[in-house]
Amino acid sequence: MLRLGLVGCGAIAHTHTANIVNKLKGAQITFVFDVFSAAAQKIVRDYNLTAKIASSIDELVNSEEVDAVLVCSRNDAHVEPILAAIKAHKPVFSEKPLATTYEDCQKIVAAEIEENQRFLQVGFMRRYDPFYQQLKQTIDGGKIGKPLMGYCRHFTAEPATNYFETPNMINDAFIHEIDIIHWLFGDDYVSVQVQYARQNSLNKNDNLVDPQIATVKMKQGAIVNTYLTQNSQYGYDVKCQIIGEKGIAELPDMPKLEMHSVGKIYHEIDHDWTYRFEEAYQLEMQDFIDQATRHEAPTGPTAWDGLVAALTADNAVESQQSQQVVEIKLPERPVLYQ
Amino acid sequence: MLRLGLVGCGAIAHTHTANIVNKLKGAQITFVFDVFSAAAQKIVRDYNLTAKIASSIDELVNSEEVDAVLVCSRNDAHVEPILAAIKAHKPVFSEKPLATTYEDCQKIVAAEIEENQRFLQVGFMRRYDPFYQQLKQTIDGGKIGKPLMGYCRHFTAEPATNYFETPNMINDAFIHEIDIIHWLFGDDYVSVQVQYARQNSLNKNDNLVDPQIATVKMKQGAIVNTYLTQNSQYGYDVKCQIIGEKGIAELPDMPKLEMHSVGKIYHEIDHDWTYRFEEAYQLEMQDFIDQATRHEAPTGPTAWDGLVAALTADNAVESQQSQQVVEIKLPERPVLYQ
Amino acid sequence: MLRLGLVGCGAIAHTHTANIVNKLKGAQITFVFDVFSAAAQKIVRDYNLTAKIASSIDELVNSEEVDAVLVCSRNDAHVEPILAAIKAHKPVFSEKPLATTYEDCQKIVAAEIEENQRFLQVGFMRRYDPFYQQLKQTIDGGKIGKPLMGYCRHFTAEPATNYFETPNMINDAFIHEIDIIHWLFGDDYVSVQVQYARQNSLNKNDNLVDPQIATVKMKQGAIVNTYLTQNSQYGYDVKCQIIGEKGIAELPDMPKLEMHSVGKIYHEIDHDWTYRFEEAYQLEMQDFIDQATRHEAPTGPTAWDGLVAALTADNAVESQQSQQVVEIKLPERPVLYQ
Amino acid sequence: MLRLGLVGCGAIAHTHTANIVNKLKGAQITFVFDVFSAAAQKIVRDYNLTAKIASSIDELVNSEEVDAVLVCSRNDAHVEPILAAIKAHKPVFSEKPLATTYEDCQKIVAAEIEENQRFLQVGFMRRYDPFYQQLKQTIDGGKIGKPLMGYCRHFTAEPATNYFETPNMINDAFIHEIDIIHWLFGDDYVSVQVQYARQNSLNKNDNLVDPQIATVKMKQGAIVNTYLTQNSQYGYDVKCQIIGEKGIAELPDMPKLEMHSVGKIYHEIDHDWTYRFEEAYQLEMQDFIDQATRHEAPTGPTAWDGLVAALTADNAVESQQSQQVVEIKLPERPVLYQ
Ligand SMILES: [Mg+2]
Ligand SMILES: [Mg+2]
Ligand SMILES: [Mg+2]
Ligand SMILES: [Mg+2]
Repeated sequence: MLRLGLVGCGAIAHTHTANIVNKLKGAQITFVFDVFSAAAQKIVRDYNLTAKIASSIDELVNSEEVDAVLVCSRNDAHVEPILAAIKAHKPVFSEKPLATTYEDCQKIVAAEIEENQRFLQVGFMRRYDPFYQQLKQTIDGGKIGKPLMGYCRHFTAEPATNYFETPNMINDAFIHEIDIIHWLFGDDYVSVQVQYARQNSLNKNDNLVDPQIATVKMKQGAIVNTYLTQNSQYGYDVKCQIIGEKGIAELPDMPKLEMHSVGKIYHEIDHDWTYRFEEAYQLEMQDFIDQATRHEAPTGPTAWDGLVAALTADNAVESQQSQQVVEIKLPERPVLYQ
Repeated sequence: MLRLGLVGCGAIAHTHTANIVNKLKGAQITFVFDVFSAAAQKIVRDYNLTAKIASSIDELVNSEEVDAVLVCSRNDAHVEPILAAIKAHKPVFSEKPLATTYEDCQKIVAAEIEENQRFLQVGFMRRYDPFYQQLKQTIDGGKIGKPLMGYCRHFTAEPATNYFETPNMINDAFIHEIDIIHWLFGDDYVSVQVQYARQNSLNKNDNLVDPQIATVKMKQGAIVNTYLTQNSQYGYDVKCQIIGEKGIAELPDMPKLEMHSVGKIYHEIDHDWTYRFEEAYQLEMQDFIDQATRHEAPTGPTAWDGLVAALTADNAVESQQSQQVVEIKLPERPVLYQ
Repeated sequence: MLRLGLVGCGAIAHTHTANIVNKLKGAQITFVFDVFSAAAQKIVRDYNLTAKIASSIDELVNSEEVDAVLVCSRNDAHVEPILAAIKAHKPVFSEKPLATTYEDCQKIVAAEIEENQRFLQVGFMRRYDPFYQQLKQTIDGGKIGKPLMGYCRHFTAEPATNYFETPNMINDAFIHEIDIIHWLFGDDYVSVQVQYARQNSLNKNDNLVDPQIATVKMKQGAIVNTYLTQNSQYGYDVKCQIIGEKGIAELPDMPKLEMHSVGKIYHEIDHDWTYRFEEAYQLEMQDFIDQATRHEAPTGPTAWDGLVAALTADNAVESQQSQQVVEIKLPERPVLYQ
Repeated sequence: MLRLGLVGCGAIAHTHTANIVNKLKGAQITFVFDVFSAAAQKIVRDYNLTAKIASSIDELVNSEEVDAVLVCSRNDAHVEPILAAIKAHKPVFSEKPLATTYEDCQKIVAAEIEENQRFLQVGFMRRYDPFYQQLKQTIDGGKIGKPLMGYCRHFTAEPATNYFETPNMINDAFIHEIDIIHWLFGDDYVSVQVQYARQNSLNKNDNLVDPQIATVKMKQGAIVNTYLTQNSQYGYDVKCQIIGEKGIAELPDMPKLEMHSVGKIYHEIDHDWTYRFEEAYQLEMQDFIDQATRHEAPTGPTAWDGLVAALTADNAVESQQSQQVVEIKLPERPVLYQ
């Protein structure tokens, strides 16, 4: 039974804890920490955990009762427990984004290179979604030839929160496509551009430009457009269509009953994201647990993937200002991540 | 320019006349007849026809200004103009059903055999529908192997008229499947059974049992179930799914925009039949005109097909009474129709 | 942690054990029994179970280390451990079919009535499939009005085994629709008929009549046709379409990538059943475990459902002989199962 | 019967002539002209026309036996017969593109303004396609709210000819989207950009850059990306997806049988364009004939639409060189075309 130390006890921590307690195999949470101790106490109580409450990140990470670390704290607080875990040679799962600055990402990558070993998995759960998995295998299997172009939709019916503003469209929404597209294409980004399309008058948030189109180009020339809205009204709609040399492969709609009713042949589309990636959240964590249990490095998104996402997102936010193409100056990929 | 004599000037005559005037090539209506002369006058006026009004069927059929005959009169009045046209060796198109009694159908078949030539095309327009055509070609091309079973839906949103009663479910609805199924399978019927399913409480007509399921079996063993309702509420829905030894072929839904709206991914389905078989009505008549112009026998449904449909429908109505299987005692197919 | 005693260690026992060990929460197998002790030893070894091997069903069922019983033995050997478990007031999960004779089913029902308590869940896993669940909720929610008719396909690409013969089409295939249809319609069967359609020449098994069509009628008049083949060639295809007073609800195809390639727009269909009901097998067992842990009666298919399936299947096999309608004389539903 | 004078007797002239002779109503070709008299003789012979062969464009356009003019000559020879027809106050249908230079388009527009009347219809047939018609009506009906973004595919399986080179991707392919998109959005273009994506190694033509992505922006901010390839390999695939404030509307796939076969659920996609816009070609010409017969101005794409397309295409070809955004400096829309 893998013993997990949980850092940060907010919403996403509850999601992971619920999965670990009710759905996943082979792990238990033995230590928790939050800067607000009430939050730590609440999560222990809510899930009836037999876990201790740590008084510091250091205590938790270095406890003999902790085999691996889950980082669910505020985005700007990921870096400390991650560096501590790497130093302690303990597997660490961090929610995305890896960090809020490119410099912090570089520190984390440097720490793993220093130890000459990978310990970190970043929570880009889409890679574990069975349909993205099918898409990856279909491309890699050559079924559509080399991938040349892509078209993605990342639509939510309404903004997740009142505080979802223009940069969030990159940092909280497009960030998922940033991670998934270079993985699918097996290539690196060379530029990103964000353009504002005709604005949706149903968007109620003055600080949110909506919709936007984000365009990435890759070294081998592939171009992918991602259409982004937080105000689709009709539902939560994540699509990814990859166009190759001899065919197209596209994520399916989520399966729902086929209905005939009142002049329509239809199936429902979900209102929000809860159902769409439920399984991916479970699979990413189970894989982290299983690899840690086997004393093997994580197979999921790495610190390098986290750094790529952070840099690309920074450049995309810069492009939001200028609406121009921004070059992405990615350093050479270190040997550890090849 | 093929000169057509039109017998019967009601609703379906207007449909065909509108097509001949506005859509089809190579024919004009030069003579019209109706037992109510006002109806004859009206159709001439409505379409601005340069046509004479005949005072009898005989005058019309035998006029030197008539090359071919269209029979759109009441169902029980088809037989007279058909027999006259056959005797006059003129191509004749008759609306379905061929006649209202099996005996009349036999007379018509006998008349063609007597002349040793086929003159008649029966208005089972579905055979000209591009999708039924694709289905026929797919089966005949062996793409699904030999056809073994079938499942059909013949649904209308609401009854065509207040006078649509239980036997109409056979004579006006299922009659189309009767004609199409033996054509698709290339086989003859051996039995038919009609069963009443759980009744639809939204059906307002006390004289209409709705829904019904009609089952036909063929000589080579194939079984096809047709689900029949005049109260689908949701729309007009004609489907035909043929299951073969190694695959299934099925009519597509009619093409409509793919929509995402208010929690649904949908396309519309037509409320009634006007759109669905519009093209088939034009194609059947154009083919009749073209064959007549070439002085060749019609290629569409024959008098024999009309007789098969009449006998099978009679047996189906008999089965409505008993709910039991009724054997279909079809005479041997005459050489003229092989 | 619920302690399970496993009776019968064959193929389906391995499926359930793998799930309990690798996927499900809250249970462990503490005791196993098989008439072939080598099979018992093998399952303990294969899954590294910390389980004892019982020398008799009685020892296993009555052990203080067993909280609930799983019955995966041969179909004709289900009855003994089930009756023992009921007597011992222990929750018991039995693979379908409940028993191989109607009399044994009656004994089991009588045993529960004697104890005035339900302990048994029968392994009709389809009820736990998320799409059948959606279908049930959609019908019960009134979205299509009262259900009137149904059309089902139960197709496998090829026979599961060389020993799959004509009666297996009922006992191993149609049995699933028998259980699911009366559950979906909330009604009881009054008759069943099995008809042989045109035979598939690609069927290599002389003792298997293929395809067949099974028709059930229910008290309130609903009729459902199930098309059955073990030789679809093209894939594993389980569909269920329910036609109500104002609409249709139908199981979706399993989600696969939407592909454009070589002249086709397509998605793949599975070759066999392994993927289709994987989740249902897990959900049925998790629910059994959870209910047993709460000391509550199972919510899944009951002994009465098992008896209904057994009687209906017997009548269907009888109909295979005669090809005629066979009346189903179901006793009144006992209060315990209402 | 409208008497048509045909200028230019090449491939597209044959298409229109075949339609006029075999499919359309109310017109006959009475005069033909081609700079190669053999071509003129051939079309008369091929369709058995009772038409005279003109010795000059002037003779044809001004003949008393010509009510309206069809221009099917080489693209750079459209302008002469068009100007002649406008001067003669005769309705004129010209194949697209209107002309090969922006200056020629301006001359044509100026000529109509001079006469203060519209005579010209440009052969952008897609506007007559029933599915684009549905799309236009759906947008104008407000069903998806205001249109904000679009995504189009214009794919052919292989290049139409060996001479299909990089600029043809604009002038022969994207030109159709140029016309259709501003019509659908009811707005004017402000810029265009063409970008080369990762190149398809299956493209055999050294003078063709393939694939490309063309992006247009409109005054009200809408952005539409069109993905262009002449080497899809899999088939002819024209799609148009419009994303509005509260929904998406998208062209359907062309209807084909739904098949289950060899592990796939599929429908076929056409290999080339012949089937896709067959009906649109007929409808555009029938509408032109009907309007001319009624002595009313054409309702189809105007000279102004032709000018807009020419200017936008020129700018797009310029963008192919630089890969940069090119501003479209469209003059103010003259009153005649509002
Ligand atoms: Mg995550
Ligand atoms: Mg007809
Ligand atoms: Mg089971
Ligand atoms: Mg054109």
